[in-house]
Amino acid sequence: MGTKQDIEEGVEFTPKFDDNGLITAIAQDSQSGQVLMVAYMNRQALDLTIQTGYATYFSRSRQKLWKKGEQSGHLQKVKQILVDCDQDCLVLKVAVDAGQCHVGYRSCFYRALQSKNNTDNKLEFIAERVYDPKKIYRK
Amino acid sequence: MGTKQDIEEGVEFTPKFDDNGLITAIAQDSQSGQVLMVAYMNRQALDLTIQTGYATYFSRSRQKLWKKGEQSGHLQKVKQILVDCDQDCLVLKVAVDAGQCHVGYRSCFYRALQSKNNTDNKLEFIAERVYDPKKIYRK
Repeated sequence: MGTKQDIEEGVEFTPKFDDNGLITAIAQDSQSGQVLMVAYMNRQALDLTIQTGYATYFSRSRQKLWKKGEQSGHLQKVKQILVDCDQDCLVLKVAVDAGQCHVGYRSCFYRALQSKNNTDNKLEFIAERVYDPKKIYRK
Repeated sequence: MGTKQDIEEGVEFTPKFDDNGLITAIAQDSQSGQVLMVAYMNRQALDLTIQTGYATYFSRSRQKLWKKGEQSGHLQKVKQILVDCDQDCLVLKVAVDAGQCHVGYRSCFYRALQSKNNTDNKLEFIAERVYDPKKIYRK
């Protein structure tokens, strides 16, 4: 474990996994800059991502490795991996096809609060569905 | 608590806080799309963010509310708040001045793995410092 200065200002990649062995990973469209999804990686998922060039996460709900797109075909080809100052969060710049979110949208962030000073907690849809998840995911 | 369908396809904003009462919040530059930082909000921080129009987080290290920029002056003016499919993560589109990261960079993500198939764990700096943190932060 390096010093705070090593971690923040050094060139050693020393990702910090939390008490559950996970690090937060944000997938961002390398072309548009759109934030596509947020997921988690354990050490093995991160190593696989680096080695294969395709994003692999750790599913907290299923408690297993999850190569994004293994079921849907919507793979994320990793162009660049960024790490933040304290090395406890990653941004993956990824090349993707149309649909990324299991609900059928390009990004998981397809809704916004209706106004920034909104206090009645209503969302509005800011995107259109790009595929029909029923056709891709089977129970 | 709504059904999965309500949460994913409805218009009620029902943010899901984790066991520590926190939700992940990504600050993204509303102009450039650059991911600036990742932090956490408790219910109160989220309410303050919505009410004031400026990003307020909950500092896990200091265990207190933290209005971003209260010390440095680098406030985040919130333009839009997005929520993801399962409502356990937020993206804040924010307008900012130059420096956002306490290390002196615009974004906390100022380093990248040297190549995507990198296995020797070396980072490279991909940004220039935009301010001198020593002049802003005092012990």
